[in-house]
Amino acid sequence: MAHVVVRHIDRASQDVIDGLARAGVATAHEAAGRIGLLGPQIRPIQQGTRIAGSAVTVSCHPGDNLMIHAAVEVVEPGDILVVTTTSRSTDGMFGELLATSLLARGCAGLVIDAGVRDAAELREMGFPVWSRAVHAQGTVKASPGSVNVTVTCANQIVHAGDVVIADDDGVCVLPRLAAPAILAACHAREAREAGVREQLRAGKLGLDIYSLRPLLDRLGVRYVDRAEDLAAN
Amino acid sequence: MAHVVVRHIDRASQDVIDGLARAGVATAHEAAGRIGLLGPQIRPIQQGTRIAGSAVTVSCHPGDNLMIHAAVEVVEPGDILVVTTTSRSTDGMFGELLATSLLARGCAGLVIDAGVRDAAELREMGFPVWSRAVHAQGTVKASPGSVNVTVTCANQIVHAGDVVIADDDGVCVLPRLAAPAILAACHAREAREAGVREQLRAGKLGLDIYSLRPLLDRLGVRYVDRAEDLAAN
Amino acid sequence: MAHVVVRHIDRASQDVIDGLARAGVATAHEAAGRIGLLGPQIRPIQQGTRIAGSAVTVSCHPGDNLMIHAAVEVVEPGDILVVTTTSRSTDGMFGELLATSLLARGCAGLVIDAGVRDAAELREMGFPVWSRAVHAQGTVKASPGSVNVTVTCANQIVHAGDVVIADDDGVCVLPRLAAPAILAACHAREAREAGVREQLRAGKLGLDIYSLRPLLDRLGVRYVDRAEDLAAN
Amino acid sequence: MAHVVVRHIDRASQDVIDGLARAGVATAHEAAGRIGLLGPQIRPIQQGTRIAGSAVTVSCHPGDNLMIHAAVEVVEPGDILVVTTTSRSTDGMFGELLATSLLARGCAGLVIDAGVRDAAELREMGFPVWSRAVHAQGTVKASPGSVNVTVTCANQIVHAGDVVIADDDGVCVLPRLAAPAILAACHAREAREAGVREQLRAGKLGLDIYSLRPLLDRLGVRYVDRAEDLAAN
Amino acid sequence: MAHVVVRHIDRASQDVIDGLARAGVATAHEAAGRIGLLGPQIRPIQQGTRIAGSAVTVSCHPGDNLMIHAAVEVVEPGDILVVTTTSRSTDGMFGELLATSLLARGCAGLVIDAGVRDAAELREMGFPVWSRAVHAQGTVKASPGSVNVTVTCANQIVHAGDVVIADDDGVCVLPRLAAPAILAACHAREAREAGVREQLRAGKLGLDIYSLRPLLDRLGVRYVDRAEDLAAN
Amino acid sequence: MAHVVVRHIDRASQDVIDGLARAGVATAHEAAGRIGLLGPQIRPIQQGTRIAGSAVTVSCHPGDNLMIHAAVEVVEPGDILVVTTTSRSTDGMFGELLATSLLARGCAGLVIDAGVRDAAELREMGFPVWSRAVHAQGTVKASPGSVNVTVTCANQIVHAGDVVIADDDGVCVLPRLAAPAILAACHAREAREAGVREQLRAGKLGLDIYSLRPLLDRLGVRYVDRAEDLAAN
Repeated sequence: MAHVVVRHIDRASQDVIDGLARAGVATAHEAAGRIGLLGPQIRPIQQGTRIAGSAVTVSCHPGDNLMIHAAVEVVEPGDILVVTTTSRSTDGMFGELLATSLLARGCAGLVIDAGVRDAAELREMGFPVWSRAVHAQGTVKASPGSVNVTVTCANQIVHAGDVVIADDDGVCVLPRLAAPAILAACHAREAREAGVREQLRAGKLGLDIYSLRPLLDRLGVRYVDRAEDLAAN
Repeated sequence: MAHVVVRHIDRASQDVIDGLARAGVATAHEAAGRIGLLGPQIRPIQQGTRIAGSAVTVSCHPGDNLMIHAAVEVVEPGDILVVTTTSRSTDGMFGELLATSLLARGCAGLVIDAGVRDAAELREMGFPVWSRAVHAQGTVKASPGSVNVTVTCANQIVHAGDVVIADDDGVCVLPRLAAPAILAACHAREAREAGVREQLRAGKLGLDIYSLRPLLDRLGVRYVDRAEDLAAN
Repeated sequence: MAHVVVRHIDRASQDVIDGLARAGVATAHEAAGRIGLLGPQIRPIQQGTRIAGSAVTVSCHPGDNLMIHAAVEVVEPGDILVVTTTSRSTDGMFGELLATSLLARGCAGLVIDAGVRDAAELREMGFPVWSRAVHAQGTVKASPGSVNVTVTCANQIVHAGDVVIADDDGVCVLPRLAAPAILAACHAREAREAGVREQLRAGKLGLDIYSLRPLLDRLGVRYVDRAEDLAAN
Repeated sequence: MAHVVVRHIDRASQDVIDGLARAGVATAHEAAGRIGLLGPQIRPIQQGTRIAGSAVTVSCHPGDNLMIHAAVEVVEPGDILVVTTTSRSTDGMFGELLATSLLARGCAGLVIDAGVRDAAELREMGFPVWSRAVHAQGTVKASPGSVNVTVTCANQIVHAGDVVIADDDGVCVLPRLAAPAILAACHAREAREAGVREQLRAGKLGLDIYSLRPLLDRLGVRYVDRAEDLAAN
Repeated sequence: MAHVVVRHIDRASQDVIDGLARAGVATAHEAAGRIGLLGPQIRPIQQGTRIAGSAVTVSCHPGDNLMIHAAVEVVEPGDILVVTTTSRSTDGMFGELLATSLLARGCAGLVIDAGVRDAAELREMGFPVWSRAVHAQGTVKASPGSVNVTVTCANQIVHAGDVVIADDDGVCVLPRLAAPAILAACHAREAREAGVREQLRAGKLGLDIYSLRPLLDRLGVRYVDRAEDLAAN
Repeated sequence: MAHVVVRHIDRASQDVIDGLARAGVATAHEAAGRIGLLGPQIRPIQQGTRIAGSAVTVSCHPGDNLMIHAAVEVVEPGDILVVTTTSRSTDGMFGELLATSLLARGCAGLVIDAGVRDAAELREMGFPVWSRAVHAQGTVKASPGSVNVTVTCANQIVHAGDVVIADDDGVCVLPRLAAPAILAACHAREAREAGVREQLRAGKLGLDIYSLRPLLDRLGVRYVDRAEDLAAN
């Protein structure tokens, strides 16, 4: 309950992180057993960016970005800042000055369950952001909070050092220790999907590839040729 | 109440469909007498695409895409899949594998009152999608549903074979049999609007083109030169 | 309570307006003392546009754009139309014909707490729009309203002649008479921020630039090296 | 697409309607095969009322209650008015005067995908209402619409003459012709549930009554005595 | 833009306020020409209470109730506190201690575009509240704001001294100087409605009382006996 | 990531739980340092009930209540079931049969970030419920999940065995081990508040009790006698 900044966290290996970035949110979420997604209200402010990194977590008072400043100091190159507030807010707690500071330290991007501003500048700088809102509402630096403690962000638990993956589909957060196994599962899944993709491209049906016809039958799904046949039965 | 897949549906003629695609959502909706719009929560994941096609309708259990697989088989080239769920969901029921399958069969696009994933890949593939959300949440293939029955999608009734028009303004669904008459009304409207557009471009006012001044007068709208004149009255 | 169209309004000087456009929403909002923002539900339909102009306000019945037509007549080059409805609506009250008319009169753009349609055409024409929704829902021209009276738009009071600034961050509305002073404050802020930006880029921390370390200490924020140290205390 | 008032509709028998009222929304929805529910945004303004009746459907322009007046004339004793608007609105389209008129004609209640007002008076009069909002916003009587055509209300298709059931759980709409069979299924379900209820009350577990243990096992749900045992595995 | 507490405001006469309380929100809103309603998100936490009073306005930082304390001092018996925040919040800014203080000074109730807590205690004390949310989230007393300046609350402009009316239908705010005329209009409306109510109770139709049949005809609404007749035409 | 049911959890002592129930949500949340609140979307379906108990957590597939059945077996008298779903849902996953079963085992109530049904029956039975929605939507028993693992519910982390407090203000969840200290802090707070309450009741101002006048002064809040004095300055 006390406010604290944890200076050092454990991180997954860069290789694993890079592999998960290549896999992307949907594949990693599936390969991990369908866990880790932040809610769909968290959206990218840019298009076509896919990153992964270690979570540096920040818990802020709503409308107060003091703790983001504290977090900058403990960010290592490649990390992703994950910011949440103790009650819901869409205030613009983050803009291009903070992004300049984070870029100078090698930070890979920001995930924030609140608002950001300077959206155009952030896109120009190439600093990727996933947020709940874009709003210019000014904030203060006055209230305590914590850095690198466990938080909830968009109804997902995030531990400091979790692997964060973010792309156009949203944001997924995975346990650091499980990350290598999840990456392996991603590769297996991608191989499997490559095979399926070829068959689908050739016109074969998912119904047949996945053997779904007996399931439909078991579930009582009936086929009729035309709607008129429904009444006839 | 039983679950059913209807294999064959009647479709509007390709000429009419192509004409309505050129007219676009706003014009077709107006020409049809202001009917057929899906709610504004259904948004394109891409920009600048305008399509039309016959509706192949799919009713799914939330978080379950089994029936989308069943629907692929009955899609004809140029059709648009219209997917809805029996209770509200934003799960990512559709991604690039299903899009690959649908593209292989000539499907023109997807309208879904739920979530999709692989948004970046879908944009790259050029498979157009209108959805309620982008979310990677994984789904199952376990529950029965129906294909080509009448459904509601974003608070709009959709019959199999209805003409679906979709562009940056959203999605409009029109009765198959009325489609030729609506297309004719679109042409009439476009001709009328072309004339109005020229006048507006030349600086003439809508107030005069549509003869709205007497209406304003009848409605008691008063003109004053400056705000100060209000108190004076 | 009577419906009225006010023909002439006072405007800030073009120099001040141009300066505020260059400053943008976030800077102007801050420089003005954190006032004037419309709610975050008002979003641009285009990306990368930044404008400012004098507010011509329009109060409409929901689903009725009659008064927008009345407003076109009183728009001066450079003005921005600010449209609101007497109860909440997402109907598409504005499209490319009205934009054609406004462009012909030099109008700089539209802010509307309702829906617009013809989104693709509006982007092509280069007529910038900030709205609550994109929806094609047709509207009528039947109900009285007012032009250039004080309105609320997205929970913000807007007076006719206020300076409206709009960009990718949303919309900010500032009092006409205070605008020159706010512009000066913008310049001061930009100068200050330029200095801060250089330091941040060089890797200096906000914690040090803003002298936040004593504040963190005073607020009881404790530093620990690692999470394990928390239990130990 | 033309506006129409249909004077006479077919209704289910009063016995069936009364039986479904006794069954209530949840039981009837289940017995019917999980169909017919309006979205959860439609809420009762009173507590503890359970009714059923034949649907007299009304399609209105948003903010315009003209067609509700037209509908009153075709209401028969025991009917339930089901009102929807062509685009979303929370305006107070219905109040105690219309309720007085409907009570005089024996109407059983109102379901409306919009707002109502005079909530206190409606509760006092004992006229039950299910609505999307309570708001006093005044409306007009100016736009055409239809009575007793098929509509969508809270994303559910409603045909004139459908059996409407409404209670504290919300609103369910069932096909008139299927209503007798659904009532029989309700009775079967109630008998089955009475047996289950007795067992549950006696402390027997649903796991055993429904034989769910093998299913949990098949699904891979593992039992451990304490959380500490998880790490050990 | 500076923060200010205005100690003294002008108020409508107690007779007018009492009369408007008796009229209630819906009648006063109509009699005033359909103005003054706060959005439908502002709901009473109790049922069956109807009050009116002069608005003491409070503008707070979100999550900070310092200025409510400042406002208590300037409240006169019968006043209603109208609280808003500079950006959206549902924090519980108000509870039974503040209500105790306000009751001691004769305050008639609270309207707040944010959250309250101690809902059970507030109902027991008989201190009426209309709010956006009930949430226990704790707040601070740290940020400046203003009392008795013009604010927006739930998208409605509120001036200090406006007459606030609140009941189960929500909240309506009316200009102090217009209040006597609006009260007279309420009485006229009530007399008119009493006559209409008697006719409706006797079974006469609104269609006839308001002479709506010719309007329906003019609007092209067609009557048919049964749905089957539609196809026949 | 595997699905698991943990049979035994540690609980706070009954004395502490009872004490926290008496303190209620707002006081316990404050005394704990402003932590533990579930989001304001979780609302009671009854009025005037205040309970506390140990959290038995349940993670379900949306629209699937299988794991609630598994949880019933591990509930001890006085426990509170805390149910969440892996993606957002308002389906009615809980009704009177499950409540009957839970009552038979001494369960104190339910907190669920989804829908419930049989609201009237639940109120009659006196089984208290806090939920996101009331909706009758039927669900299945088909998908695995977990019991007594750490979950997020309405954006709050909940560990099995946490102390749950629920009343008209919503729901608060507190760490088991900290509960005795928090209860002591509650008592201290109540004593302090009793003193403040007496002073407020006697007409003393919060401004003076909390010594806020110097703070207002420091923050630059200026007092003026009347609004007219503002312009004069």
